[in-house]
Amino acid sequence: MSASYDVAAIGNAIVDVIAPADEAFLVDHALTKGAMMLIDEARAHELYGHMSAAIETSGGSAGNTVAGLASLGGRAAYVGKVAADQLGDVFAHDTRQIGVHFETGRLSGGPATGRCLINVTPDGERTMCTFLGASVELTAADVDPDTILGAEIVYLEGYLFDPPEARRAFAKAAGLARASGRTIALSLSDSFVVDRHRAGLLAFIEAEVDLLFANEAEITSLFETTDFEQAARAAQSLTRIAAVTRGEKGSVVITPTIRHTVEAYPVAQLVDTTGAGDQYAAGFMLGLARGKPLDACGRLGGLAAAEVISHYGPRPQVSLAELAAANGLA
Amino acid sequence: MSASYDVAAIGNAIVDVIAPADEAFLVDHALTKGAMMLIDEARAHELYGHMSAAIETSGGSAGNTVAGLASLGGRAAYVGKVAADQLGDVFAHDTRQIGVHFETGRLSGGPATGRCLINVTPDGERTMCTFLGASVELTAADVDPDTILGAEIVYLEGYLFDPPEARRAFAKAAGLARASGRTIALSLSDSFVVDRHRAGLLAFIEAEVDLLFANEAEITSLFETTDFEQAARAAQSLTRIAAVTRGEKGSVVITPTIRHTVEAYPVAQLVDTTGAGDQYAAGFMLGLARGKPLDACGRLGGLAAAEVISHYGPRPQVSLAELAAANGLA
Repeated sequence: MSASYDVAAIGNAIVDVIAPADEAFLVDHALTKGAMMLIDEARAHELYGHMSAAIETSGGSAGNTVAGLASLGGRAAYVGKVAADQLGDVFAHDTRQIGVHFETGRLSGGPATGRCLINVTPDGERTMCTFLGASVELTAADVDPDTILGAEIVYLEGYLFDPPEARRAFAKAAGLARASGRTIALSLSDSFVVDRHRAGLLAFIEAEVDLLFANEAEITSLFETTDFEQAARAAQSLTRIAAVTRGEKGSVVITPTIRHTVEAYPVAQLVDTTGAGDQYAAGFMLGLARGKPLDACGRLGGLAAAEVISHYGPRPQVSLAELAAANGLA
Repeated sequence: MSASYDVAAIGNAIVDVIAPADEAFLVDHALTKGAMMLIDEARAHELYGHMSAAIETSGGSAGNTVAGLASLGGRAAYVGKVAADQLGDVFAHDTRQIGVHFETGRLSGGPATGRCLINVTPDGERTMCTFLGASVELTAADVDPDTILGAEIVYLEGYLFDPPEARRAFAKAAGLARASGRTIALSLSDSFVVDRHRAGLLAFIEAEVDLLFANEAEITSLFETTDFEQAARAAQSLTRIAAVTRGEKGSVVITPTIRHTVEAYPVAQLVDTTGAGDQYAAGFMLGLARGKPLDACGRLGGLAAAEVISHYGPRPQVSLAELAAANGLA
């Protein structure tokens, strides 16, 4: 069966609220720099009340990835839950208007659309506090089999391991994809997510995952080591392909037999790292869906990541397809 | 009486929805490039449905101006109406968190918070369609006399000439300011606003306005001429100070006796002209409130405008106070 989508992604549907902050703000509010912390609505309200003037833009890790895929000229579908409110309108609009298939039913009478409060320090690092809101109400019933079966790659966001209902949706999607021979990709999302769900994640990766995305903190957390080499060797025997991002050191693509080291693209000015991992995954998966060699997949991922960290916000601001063509990666 | 605020501003409280668009989009949707068009909720919904993925950020002409004033280290107050909804939360947050006094009551059970759909073409020009929403429900009762009397300059946004109730609020503020010897400033806002309300605006300026802000299109529309020189001479005899912006040609500050020509600051890359006039007014009024000569006021306005057109969005992204200091204008 020829696929309708290069990638179908499932994730927590979130609107980002992005503001500049200084280092003292992180200390005052007990935030761990660079991490994602889950907060409840009361804490979200309180923290937002202390943040600076912000911009709002659609986010969510897998949502950002499908936006990157669409910008690269790929065909993508998205499954995620927003509420029937103004921020839900924003999320649905931003997702559909870039050509992503998005038909998950909206939530009425429950929590508001989820928000991620992102404080960006002058060094460009983002620190995130997420009120999941409506996104936790994603259920297995929201996972449309036609969407999953219509995709070459089914991409799952590690953040979904937090909400129990979403985790069932996750398992359903993986089961459908496995049964029809689709490639299953997983992003580890955050080192604290890995810490909270290590055993479950390891079992899931071993049983189901063909393509694993992680950064250095996440992969070392997964294997409970501080040594990257040790984590890389462990990843090698766990999954078919592991693509590990290492910030300015680029990325490493690991298979059971080969390891590719891919240099990072230079960035004129690092403004905001939000979305770097998400865009790397977008570029990598588009390359894979188009049959490119793994090192070229890594380069395309790196190029997409370099674009997104050069400005505020988690989604590309230029056509990644044109950028890829200009860099000989089309 | 010593003033609590450098500037108290009254305007249509609006959240901006900013998206890239090509020239064909403007043609297809019959939009006049560079202008502001009023639209109703149904048209807003329809147009938004055709726009690309967007970012949301607090806007409104006078709202942007007080944001610029605060960034310059000035003390500002704002009067404007948003609804008790998510976008109203965003507007109130963004206004207060930069240190602007904003206590106008929120609207419940009426229209939603106003939105300005802004399509930015590759040349950086912005074309705006505004659904006024809750902002038209601003009434004279919302104009708090203590706020108006506590300001050195009372700044009125020409857009308020459109909603009839807001126009009464406008008149009340002007009356209060006049009675207590405050400086009254008016921005003409848009050439089509001028066209709709020419007689009313001319009478109001002659009777009440000390400081008039306009761009070239607005000032020539006001005096029904295509000749800038002719418009400049007419402005000279109408008001005490007219500050007229001319895009890359800089600005001209006109008084009954003197005319200052102020060069524009160079901009590395013109990205989005949204907010240029608003930030010019912010810089100019801060200079005036601090007792600077008029040409220095024009330079400070030009510097603030140059910052805002170098990125997406209508409000400064860096500290304008630091930028002014670095350019010898503190």
